[in-house]
Amino acid sequence: KKQYRIAVIPGDGIGKEVMPEGLRVLEAAAKKHGVSLHFDHFDFSSWDYYEKHGQMMPDDWKEKIGKHDAIYFGAVGWPAKIPDHVSLWGSLIKFRREFDQYVNLRPVRLMPGVPSPLANRKPGDIDFWVVRENTEGEYSSVGGRMFPDTDREFVTQQTVMTRTGVDRILKFAFELAQSRPKKHLTSATKSNGISITMPYWDERVEAMAKKFPGVKWDKYHIDILTANFVLHPDWFDVVVGSNLFGDILSDLGPACTGTIGIAPSGNINPEGDFPSVFEPVHGSAPDIAGQGIANPIGAIWSGAMMFEHLGEKEAGRSIVDAIERTLAERTLRTRDLGGNADTTACGKAVAEMV
Amino acid sequence: KKQYRIAVIPGDGIGKEVMPEGLRVLEAAAKKHGVSLHFDHFDFSSWDYYEKHGQMMPDDWKEKIGKHDAIYFGAVGWPAKIPDHVSLWGSLIKFRREFDQYVNLRPVRLMPGVPSPLANRKPGDIDFWVVRENTEGEYSSVGGRMFPDTDREFVTQQTVMTRTGVDRILKFAFELAQSRPKKHLTSATKSNGISITMPYWDERVEAMAKKFPGVKWDKYHIDILTANFVLHPDWFDVVVGSNLFGDILSDLGPACTGTIGIAPSGNINPEGDFPSVFEPVHGSAPDIAGQGIANPIGAIWSGAMMFEHLGEKEAGRSIVDAIERTLAERTLRTRDLGGNADTTACGKAVAEMV
Ligand SMILES: CC(C)[C@H](C(=O)O)[C@@H](O)C(=O)O
Ligand SMILES: CC(C)[C@H](C(=O)O)[C@@H](O)C(=O)O
Repeated sequence: KKQYRIAVIPGDGIGKEVMPEGLRVLEAAAKKHGVSLHFDHFDFSSWDYYEKHGQMMPDDWKEKIGKHDAIYFGAVGWPAKIPDHVSLWGSLIKFRREFDQYVNLRPVRLMPGVPSPLANRKPGDIDFWVVRENTEGEYSSVGGRMFPDTDREFVTQQTVMTRTGVDRILKFAFELAQSRPKKHLTSATKSNGISITMPYWDERVEAMAKKFPGVKWDKYHIDILTANFVLHPDWFDVVVGSNLFGDILSDLGPACTGTIGIAPSGNINPEGDFPSVFEPVHGSAPDIAGQGIANPIGAIWSGAMMFEHLGEKEAGRSIVDAIERTLAERTLRTRDLGGNADTTACGKAVAEMV
Repeated sequence: KKQYRIAVIPGDGIGKEVMPEGLRVLEAAAKKHGVSLHFDHFDFSSWDYYEKHGQMMPDDWKEKIGKHDAIYFGAVGWPAKIPDHVSLWGSLIKFRREFDQYVNLRPVRLMPGVPSPLANRKPGDIDFWVVRENTEGEYSSVGGRMFPDTDREFVTQQTVMTRTGVDRILKFAFELAQSRPKKHLTSATKSNGISITMPYWDERVEAMAKKFPGVKWDKYHIDILTANFVLHPDWFDVVVGSNLFGDILSDLGPACTGTIGIAPSGNINPEGDFPSVFEPVHGSAPDIAGQGIANPIGAIWSGAMMFEHLGEKEAGRSIVDAIERTLAERTLRTRDLGGNADTTACGKAVAEMV
C-alpha cells in the first residue's frame, strides 16, 4: 500500500499555529481510512529562516521538496520584517512558477452554522469553485521604470497571456464544470476596458467551450461579476479567471460565505510532474499571531483538498464532513466566528468528529 | 446671472428612458434654486447614430460639445449590435481621454428604504466615495499578439502609470478625504503580486500622504479590500484606486448598498479645461430596455453630482434629499427595488419631492 510523503512547511505567524491542527486532523482521517502518511517538516519559507540564512529557502529547495507527493503549507509573509516581494516571490510564487502549479483552486461554500455577511443566504445557496490561473497574466515580471524622479517618470508592466497558459486553465475549469451537476461555467473578463489581453481570453473561452458542448457557459466583466457575487451568489458553479481576477474572486467569495479563516486552497499541477501546494487562503496574520486564537479550519480544509488531490476521496470527504458538523454544532469555534475556543480546541474538535 | 449650457446625450437602451426623468428633476431643482440651465440635445454616441453614419460620433464632436459647462450622459453600448470596443472606445472612453476626465468619482451610500444585500447594515453605516483614476493604468492601448494561431501564440498588454497621472488622482483623493469629517483615505493596491506598477502606486501614495498630514491613510491589497467591502463597509471614507481597481470597487460598492440602478458617477476634469461627464453607473441594459421599467435614480443622482460640480451645491443637495425621501417612503419605486412603479412615475415622484 502506498505511503504518501508530505512536505510540511508551516512558514510564518499563524501558519505555525494552524498547521499542528491540520496535521492532527489529517492523521485522524488517515487512521480511519487506512491511508499511510509520512511527514517531512521544513523550517524554510519563513522569516525565521530568512533571518538566519539571508534567503527564504536553501539553494537545493527543489531537491528537498520536489519529489514529495504534496506540500502542506501554512502561511508566509511578515511585512514589518521582510518586504512581500522578498518573502512571497521567494517562496509561494516561486513554487507556483517553478512547480508549474498552474491551477489555483478554491471552494466558495456557505457552511452550516457560519453566519454569512449576506442577508438571507442559507447553506446550500452558495456552493461553487473559483479556478484561478496561477502562473502568468497580470503577475508578470516584465516591465520597468523610465525617467526616475522627474516629472516624466512612468512605469509599465505587461500582462502576459500565452495560448498554453490560457488553454490549460480553461480546460481544467471546463472539465470541473462538466463533472458537476449544474455543468455551468462563468468566465471573468474585462474585454470592454482591457482591450488586448482580455478579448484574447474571451476568444480562447469560446474556442474551449466548443469542446465541452455539455457545459453551459457565460461571462461577466469583473466589475459586475464582483457585484453579482454579493447580489446573486447562487448563480455560480465554476468561475474561471486570470491570475488577478481569480485572486480577487477567491477572497471575495469566501468573504461572502462568512470568513476567510475557513477557506482552503490548492496550488495544483494537474499532471503531477511536480508536487502541489495546499494552504489556507488566510495569510500569516501578524496582528493575531502568537495568541493561539487563529481559526485552524482553513488549514484543515486544505488538508482535505490534499487528500482529494492524492486520490484519497473518502479521507478528504470525511474531513469536510467533520468540519461541517463541528461548525454546525456551534460549540467549539474561534473568535472570527463569534466563539471563544482557541486554535487547539477547535482542531481537536474537528479531529474527534472525523 | 450665469446660464449653464449642458450637452445632453441619452445614448442607448435605458439611457434614453432614464434621461427624461433626470432632466425633469434637474429642471425642478433649477427652478427652486433659481439656477438657469440650457440643454442642447445630441443623438450621437449611440447605436442609432452608428447605424446611420458608420461611426459613433461626428468628426467635429469636440467642437459640438467641448465648450459646454457639462455633459449629461445616459448609457452607451449594445453588444449584440455593435462590439464594445467600437461603441465604448468610440465615445465614453474617448471622452475620458480626450477631455482629460482623469477622476471617476462615485459615492457608495446606503440609502434609507433600500434593502442592502448585506445583513444588519443600516443607512449611515455605509457612506464613502470611490475615486478612480480614469485615463491610464490597466486600460492602455499598448500591447499586441505574436505567433497567431500557433501553439506559441501569446498576447501582452501594458499597464502604464505616469507620475502625472498617479499624482493628480491621489491629490484629488487626499483633498476629498481632508474635506470630510473622518479624513480617512484607503488606497487599493496589489503590490505583493503586481510587482512593478503597484509598488510604484504605493510609493506615490506615501509621498502624497506627507503633504496631507491631517489625513489618516491605509492601504489594502485589492483581494482583501473587496472582501472588506462586504465584511466591513463601515471602515471606509475615501477609497482611491487605479483605473481597473476603481472600476471594480465602484460596482462592488453600489452592489453592497442594494442596487447598481441608483448609483451615479462623474467623469471629472477638475481643472475645468474640458467639460465633465455625469452618467449613471448602470449601462444600457438591453435586457430591460424598451419596457419603461428602468430605475431613473442613477441618472437623477448623477444630475445632482453635476450641480455640485458646477458649484450649485444647494440645488445638488436638494436633489439628493428628494431621492432619499422618495426611497424612504417606499411607495414609488421601480422593480429592482421590489416595487412596481415605472421609470416615469419614479422620476415624477422625485421631481415633486425637490
Ligand atoms: C463600459 C466600461 C468600459 C466602463 C469601464 O470599465 O470603465 C464601465 O464599466 C464603467 O465603469 O464606466
Ligand atoms: C500573497 C499574494 C501574493 C497571493 C496572491 O496574490 O496570489 C495571495 O493573495 C493569494 O491569493 O495566494
